[in-house]
Amino acid sequence: MTARDITTEDIEDLAAGAWVLGTGGGGSPYLGLLNMRRLYADGHCVRLMPVDDLDDQDWVAAVSNMGAPLVGQERLTDSRTIARAVTLMESHTGYRFRAIMALEIGGGNSIQPLMAAAHLDRPVVDADMMGRAYPEAQMTSAAVGDLRPYPLATVDVRGVEAIVERVPSWTWMERVSRRICVEYGSIASTCKAPRTGAEVKRWGIRGTTTKAIAIGRALRLARVGHADPIAAILAVEPGKVLFQGKAIDVERRTTEGFLRGKARFDGAADWRGTRLEIAFQNEWIVAWLDGEPIAMSPDLICVLDSVTGEAVGTETVRYGQRVTVIALPPPPVFLTPRGLAHVGPAAFGYDMPFRGVFTP
Amino acid sequence: MTARDITTEDIEDLAAGAWVLGTGGGGSPYLGLLNMRRLYADGHCVRLMPVDDLDDQDWVAAVSNMGAPLVGQERLTDSRTIARAVTLMESHTGYRFRAIMALEIGGGNSIQPLMAAAHLDRPVVDADMMGRAYPEAQMTSAAVGDLRPYPLATVDVRGVEAIVERVPSWTWMERVSRRICVEYGSIASTCKAPRTGAEVKRWGIRGTTTKAIAIGRALRLARVGHADPIAAILAVEPGKVLFQGKAIDVERRTTEGFLRGKARFDGAADWRGTRLEIAFQNEWIVAWLDGEPIAMSPDLICVLDSVTGEAVGTETVRYGQRVTVIALPPPPVFLTPRGLAHVGPAAFGYDMPFRGVFTP
Repeated sequence: MTARDITTEDIEDLAAGAWVLGTGGGGSPYLGLLNMRRLYADGHCVRLMPVDDLDDQDWVAAVSNMGAPLVGQERLTDSRTIARAVTLMESHTGYRFRAIMALEIGGGNSIQPLMAAAHLDRPVVDADMMGRAYPEAQMTSAAVGDLRPYPLATVDVRGVEAIVERVPSWTWMERVSRRICVEYGSIASTCKAPRTGAEVKRWGIRGTTTKAIAIGRALRLARVGHADPIAAILAVEPGKVLFQGKAIDVERRTTEGFLRGKARFDGAADWRGTRLEIAFQNEWIVAWLDGEPIAMSPDLICVLDSVTGEAVGTETVRYGQRVTVIALPPPPVFLTPRGLAHVGPAAFGYDMPFRGVFTP
Repeated sequence: MTARDITTEDIEDLAAGAWVLGTGGGGSPYLGLLNMRRLYADGHCVRLMPVDDLDDQDWVAAVSNMGAPLVGQERLTDSRTIARAVTLMESHTGYRFRAIMALEIGGGNSIQPLMAAAHLDRPVVDADMMGRAYPEAQMTSAAVGDLRPYPLATVDVRGVEAIVERVPSWTWMERVSRRICVEYGSIASTCKAPRTGAEVKRWGIRGTTTKAIAIGRALRLARVGHADPIAAILAVEPGKVLFQGKAIDVERRTTEGFLRGKARFDGAADWRGTRLEIAFQNEWIVAWLDGEPIAMSPDLICVLDSVTGEAVGTETVRYGQRVTVIALPPPPVFLTPRGLAHVGPAAFGYDMPFRGVFTP
């Protein structure tokens, strides 16, 4: 791949595809999409940059909104907020960022770097640190790689700015930044620890913006051509259908800066007479079919509208929705012992060994 | 007053006097006192600097431990921690502090600037921003003077460091920094917004280190001479005895980074047959005699051991203690309408007008 301009069509596809990769979380991309339509209408254009175009010494800003997705639905996005997180980090460190990247490609956080890039006139690197969405700060390839977790810059819409300057561990970064996020109202725009070009080349999960655009494009073309959208996704991604059915119950609570709960689905088609239950912490974490775990993090569990193929978020899933649940393979970095320690089921409090959908 | 070295005797007196001015809070000075004894034994000596020796352009570091006093009793003080808060602020702002001052002269926070000063070899300014102890960030003369509330640097013993870089108001500074403090374990060592020499001259409460030393000295001399310690305090400070009696009940809880509750006392001597109740939020806030409010913030309510004259803290008051409760007059800045808005009874949630012990 070579550097290229991101088109307006790409942004529409990115929003749809990243929502699938969000595995229920990362926040709905819709508000970010509206912002990007406006920014492009105003003449902005964002350039997508391959990882290999970075120099080892370049500084890269990894950005995301952290917090509870439900709050992100209620507090409208101002595209300048995420740009302020980047400029706060620049003024704090004295670095000049060569480019901006997503911390997580999943959901609305796929759009955050584009908004910052448009305001600050920098390219977006075609990579992220999750290859999906995860709820906590230490659930990144950077943390698995034991890169420096600090500093982290946070801003909110009121003008509050706080920096976590130093921490003894990734877990402490999560603890302190989460408290700040909760006080902001469970949503904070953040610029994570600056990464060098060398670090992004070694630990970045490559090509994930391109991948999200490809998934969104497949969904769009299926819709135009009246084709099966689920099959269209599986034609571009090596995934597996886990279940089809109807949402019959949702337990959901916003707590400690997260959205937690469970959703239950009654089976349809080949799954008639069975029941699927999926636990979530912002993202879908573990799925049980009739009490047996059939998929779990780091495998991507994606709940999709059976008719449109659109992703269903943990904050929007509701009674009566007809869904198809698919699994997609995770970035290999999370299948290592260190990776599983960070994002396997035990990292979310589930006392079970990881059993992968795609691993023997 | 001219600049002078603080003697070992001064430090003992400062600890005793500041504990009285702490009005139940500011944390027990005992652990800080032990640290200073050790630092002086190791050859350190701290210089006390009058406010007028500051140049208008000097930068002054105002330091304090924030959190719940009860936690300060349990987690032992390391004198380098408060010095780290100062160096974090220096590296963040690029300023070089000419001197260090107490944010609050009450309790253990009177000793914090001495510990930082010993490690960093700077003088301590003879002033603070409260003239006593208060629980919240916006309860200072700096806030009454509408000085800039940010940045604020926080550190903990584990090596966590966080900076609140910008806030829209003092209340937001309190909210965000309090959350960080809670995550540290309800105790954080902080360097508040840097103050210029001109700001300290205009808004600092002058001579409060000297005042605390004088109160402690009066207590010490009374003890040596077997004189009445309460009378000895009232000989150097224009206070008033409110009550004498015995602690019969204490409700106390550590919550949201504060120590809150109520203590009740049965009357003795001239107060036999009456009951005093005092509500606290780290510090003693409002006292009711048989249901009638007789003293309230910003007047200093000091609960003293009737025999020794030593102050009794909200974290140490316990059943059976014989106490004398006195009131001392507050710094005039807190009796202005703006001052009362920050620290009057309504600021603590008590729906009553301020009625002063010393004001007509």
